[in-house]
Amino acid sequence: MEDKAQIQEAIKSQGEVVRKLKSEKASKEQIDEEVAKLLALKAQLGDDGKTQFVLKTPKGTRDYNPKQMAIREKVFNTIIRCFKRHGAETIDTPVFELKETLTGKYGEDSKLIYDLKDQGGELLSLRYDLTVPFARYLAMNKITNIKRYHIAKVYRRDNPAMTRGRYREFYQCDFDIAGQYDAMIPDAECLKIVHEILNELDLGDFRIKVNDRRILDGMFAVCGVPDDKFRTICSTVDKLDKMSWEDVKKEMVNEKGLSEEAADQIGEYVSMQGGMDLAERLLQDHKMSQSKQACAGLSDIKLLFKYLQLFHVTDKVVFDLSLARGLDYYTGVIYEAVLTQASAVSAANEAQNGANAEESVSVGSVAGGGRYDGLVGMFDPKGRRVPCVGVSIGIERIFSIMEQKAEASPEKVRTTEVQIMVASAQKNLLEERLQLISELWNAGIKAEVMYKKNPKLLSQLQYCEEAGIPLVAILGEQELKDGVVKLRVVATREEVDISRADLISEIKRRTEA
Amino acid sequence: MEDKAQIQEAIKSQGEVVRKLKSEKASKEQIDEEVAKLLALKAQLGDDGKTQFVLKTPKGTRDYNPKQMAIREKVFNTIIRCFKRHGAETIDTPVFELKETLTGKYGEDSKLIYDLKDQGGELLSLRYDLTVPFARYLAMNKITNIKRYHIAKVYRRDNPAMTRGRYREFYQCDFDIAGQYDAMIPDAECLKIVHEILNELDLGDFRIKVNDRRILDGMFAVCGVPDDKFRTICSTVDKLDKMSWEDVKKEMVNEKGLSEEAADQIGEYVSMQGGMDLAERLLQDHKMSQSKQACAGLSDIKLLFKYLQLFHVTDKVVFDLSLARGLDYYTGVIYEAVLTQASAVSAANEAQNGANAEESVSVGSVAGGGRYDGLVGMFDPKGRRVPCVGVSIGIERIFSIMEQKAEASPEKVRTTEVQIMVASAQKNLLEERLQLISELWNAGIKAEVMYKKNPKLLSQLQYCEEAGIPLVAILGEQELKDGVVKLRVVATREEVDISRADLISEIKRRTEA
Repeated sequence: MEDKAQIQEAIKSQGEVVRKLKSEKASKEQIDEEVAKLLALKAQLGDDGKTQFVLKTPKGTRDYNPKQMAIREKVFNTIIRCFKRHGAETIDTPVFELKETLTGKYGEDSKLIYDLKDQGGELLSLRYDLTVPFARYLAMNKITNIKRYHIAKVYRRDNPAMTRGRYREFYQCDFDIAGQYDAMIPDAECLKIVHEILNELDLGDFRIKVNDRRILDGMFAVCGVPDDKFRTICSTVDKLDKMSWEDVKKEMVNEKGLSEEAADQIGEYVSMQGGMDLAERLLQDHKMSQSKQACAGLSDIKLLFKYLQLFHVTDKVVFDLSLARGLDYYTGVIYEAVLTQASAVSAANEAQNGANAEESVSVGSVAGGGRYDGLVGMFDPKGRRVPCVGVSIGIERIFSIMEQKAEASPEKVRTTEVQIMVASAQKNLLEERLQLISELWNAGIKAEVMYKKNPKLLSQLQYCEEAGIPLVAILGEQELKDGVVKLRVVATREEVDISRADLISEIKRRTEA
Repeated sequence: MEDKAQIQEAIKSQGEVVRKLKSEKASKEQIDEEVAKLLALKAQLGDDGKTQFVLKTPKGTRDYNPKQMAIREKVFNTIIRCFKRHGAETIDTPVFELKETLTGKYGEDSKLIYDLKDQGGELLSLRYDLTVPFARYLAMNKITNIKRYHIAKVYRRDNPAMTRGRYREFYQCDFDIAGQYDAMIPDAECLKIVHEILNELDLGDFRIKVNDRRILDGMFAVCGVPDDKFRTICSTVDKLDKMSWEDVKKEMVNEKGLSEEAADQIGEYVSMQGGMDLAERLLQDHKMSQSKQACAGLSDIKLLFKYLQLFHVTDKVVFDLSLARGLDYYTGVIYEAVLTQASAVSAANEAQNGANAEESVSVGSVAGGGRYDGLVGMFDPKGRRVPCVGVSIGIERIFSIMEQKAEASPEKVRTTEVQIMVASAQKNLLEERLQLISELWNAGIKAEVMYKKNPKLLSQLQYCEEAGIPLVAILGEQELKDGVVKLRVVATREEVDISRADLISEIKRRTEA
């Protein structure tokens, strides 16, 4: 630990850095970063001015306590069950990749990648998503067909907004189909999966927006956007869910140098929403129909809706020309699922905490994905293409909602599955308790014993109530003499003597429900 | 990607680095590291001398393919089932910690910690184990009682030996009991858990070695080791499983400066192995009994064996005075489980591959742990102690063995759980297939359909054979007219018409087994 005077010196100079940035009207992000450093230094001094350990997790990360883990497990199980229902295998890749594997895949977002320190050897970076490692895996193993899911943590040096479920370390749950198949069949399955998962998780009403990169590019072309501005204008369109059209237009014209006329034409298109009918109308649109790319995208959207009708999911799906998605690697259909209603829970929380309604309600997109037919080829020495389409479930935002729900609910979340506590009614029965619990464990029964030589019966029973353990096996002198165990139901306090020979089957019978 | 000439220049100068190191007789480790860099550079040139991407995972890491994941899932399920049977909750912590959280916890091994690059903000390191993050979690949340398991990846910049299951990124499966309890009860449960898991995984015979840091320290004291040399002599003793006593003695005397007499006395003790009787004998030993610490440790070993007898696990447990364990933070009982026989599989593999017998047989320790009563206090501003004891299952070595077993077995590992394939016997039935599979998914049935408009029946049936899918639902013109589906059993080729109304219950009935 550092010396007190040294830290006080560091606080002083860090304070000056912050003041300087403020006077220079630096970006909020930059100032926040420096203020955080200042606070970290101050925390080292502690209340009494003594040097202290900073006891925290890194910025933008969190621990999961047992209750949060129980919720997490439930959500994961729902998602994995769905992925398995659709026949997916699973793979895993390392948490870090060679730095060059990630280079050139994320456009402007590359600055958010965590690099490892150069300690000799290879240059490494933490994975930014699961899609690029998947593409690297396919190319490296020359796999041309696979349907796989991958659930793992990814890392982004982003500005965290943890109350809304935005972290620097967060889980992604990805399902992808790689292979050369007939158009829109795997794509439709991805949307069916989003529909199934959001339905099962019961998070309230939702919409799945659908668009196609080829429609966007075609639209940009017929509106007079120069070729080299497609990607940057696309990034601006992507902000329509957070900014008004006026602001988006301003950015296009003032910052990106687009003509006002072109921007206005884009503005007309990106306000359009509909279903298969909209795709049909746009195929007749005198401007849009001039773009071959747009027509290919629109025909595929029509086909997609046809398959989605067979899956009975079109009630939640909207063809939305304003959907752009940030990532560079998409080449065809893209989609994003958003929750559309403030859940009852958020409203309640808001009333309780006086939190900003926007903050607690808009958890943003909870799933997204699309087709990326070119990514695997970027890794193949001969550029061989493996067409891919996939979806990523934004699990952290879903956790946030589920946690709020659990907190608002009177029901208690159990964090263990213990079926029975082995207890004693008198002193000096530790050995008998250990012998009995060993028998139960060997029979596959989930059991606990208190780690005391002579625990009080009351404290053993209280522990059961707190932990939600339904049964207690009580040993006493009399029970040992009679060759029985007193089986107590915690909820009803009902007790019955069971012979040692029948105990295991009796516990199994009572806890099987 | 870099320019060809630039890379050739780099290869040339790297070649000189290697030559220089060799001429200077540098360490093998150092030379290997530089040779690896040279090979990586050469790989960039590719066969045709064009610049190329290096398509690999970072040194010491690996991907898990679907088959390996199926094995991993099976092993994890066995372990988690055991942890849950013993009433453990689970937590999770971030993959990286503040650098200072890890500082001063691992002794000489600290050099193996991965640091993140300083990109502004906090200094971070990848976790080295799950124990230190657990202690940080307890101190930060002021938790004084918990029984938790944690399964996650940890990171060590070690020299990988991947054929023997030693990686730089690897899983740990930790179970720990924190709290002030009566002596040796939680400690005995940890050993019972190791016994249960190794039994269930069916890896062949094993031994669990037990010792106590207090016995080691007491032994060092009575043998005349100076106080300040306890930890370093302990590290040398720890090498007895890999080095002969002669070499260990040499290191003690020549490198660590211990007197020959003291070394010889230690040599007598560390050759001792036994059970409760050995602990009793040593309590009477005229030298050992002079150390209060040693006596406290020996009494606890006696108590431990008493509890282990009640658990019926003493057949596998050995009190072994040569067991030292590397980590600094242990304060009481320590243990380590090793597989004691070359499994039939390794022998078979060896014959096939001509591999070194030692290599394929000695997978080393598969579990280890001990008591660390001081670690949590290191994180508490007021130094409050939370006694802890725990065990870590060395899962990668277990994976290696299970993978070898699976490869040697004629049985096929299934990587999905698909119950039925929805197929068609004629052309133009895609819509009917999609409609039917949607019904099956909605009923919770695991089903697949081929992503082709008009797949051949034969290729659909072949896919089922390869993937181990037991049933096929075949649609044809006639079946559609009759309102039935032809249900085919892949193994027997038996076919039967089932009405659409009964299909779901029939599939469930047939796949419930």
